[in-house]
Amino acid sequence: MTQELDRRVFRDLSYGLYIVTSRANDRLNGQIVNTVVQVTSDPARVAVVINKKNFTHELIAKSGVFGVSVLADTATLTFIGPFGFRSGRDIDKLSKVAYKEGVTGCPLVTENALSFLEVRVISQIDLGTHTIFIGDTLRSEVVREGHPLTYQYYHENLKGKSPPAAPTYTPRK
Amino acid sequence: MTQELDRRVFRDLSYGLYIVTSRANDRLNGQIVNTVVQVTSDPARVAVVINKKNFTHELIAKSGVFGVSVLADTATLTFIGPFGFRSGRDIDKLSKVAYKEGVTGCPLVTENALSFLEVRVISQIDLGTHTIFIGDTLRSEVVREGHPLTYQYYHENLKGKSPPAAPTYTPRK
Repeated sequence: MTQELDRRVFRDLSYGLYIVTSRANDRLNGQIVNTVVQVTSDPARVAVVINKKNFTHELIAKSGVFGVSVLADTATLTFIGPFGFRSGRDIDKLSKVAYKEGVTGCPLVTENALSFLEVRVISQIDLGTHTIFIGDTLRSEVVREGHPLTYQYYHENLKGKSPPAAPTYTPRK
Repeated sequence: MTQELDRRVFRDLSYGLYIVTSRANDRLNGQIVNTVVQVTSDPARVAVVINKKNFTHELIAKSGVFGVSVLADTATLTFIGPFGFRSGRDIDKLSKVAYKEGVTGCPLVTENALSFLEVRVISQIDLGTHTIFIGDTLRSEVVREGHPLTYQYYHENLKGKSPPAAPTYTPRK
């Protein structure tokens, strides 16, 4: 069934670009995510979609907390790269990046970020390759003024790529 | 707790703008939604967030199918308005709009659309005021070339507003 779909349609969907972080015990990690959405206004709940293979998935599943940093459109590929294409199982991605510690202990990246959210998971759904985590916002803070980095800008202007683990990855034929 | 949040952070999240449609028996409807995301690549699954008060929510809950049309940035407020600020319980929103009928009978809006998806619900979560519906893509089709309408463009260039039922509605103080 999926074979017959016109995959170009999925490229018409619009997204931002975020660093989603988590912490379980003494392990911290963060990764690039485009699928972050606010799902209710009152209370302020957000959802993120994370690949099950990713280290951040393991940390969120264990701790039930995550951070979302909204990237500014001035963020460079050099900064973004390690968060999208390296695993936190192999390197400490946060060792050279500015962040605050949240009320839950979760790291909240402030470098190249317009703002951040700290979220406690209240529900999750197994989507097969990915999980959608939904949570209540515990804290939100503006870091600086600026324009958010969009997924489109990342691809068209920064010439960035999507890793195969992304929910919006389009296989090349 | 929600009172202390800095609501400006939620305005940094990026979205597209879509018409989500459904059909139950002989009732058709559609509404504007900004919270549409692809959640897995294989199979191609998408999620939408809909307010429980909306007529489209009632139709999706009954039929288990929905359509998503990606709006072009050339769509006007005159076209968009009725889909965002009128209820399908009071008017037939689709009577003057071009659409195709999907394999499930769901209307798929082609007017002012770049492309559309037809989706069968496989899972849903009650989020309080809203429900997130997740489904498998049955059909996807490109209608025309162009640029997708983003939530930011809608607010900044078209001077569009968000109805209180939107998941991303920000209460004014």
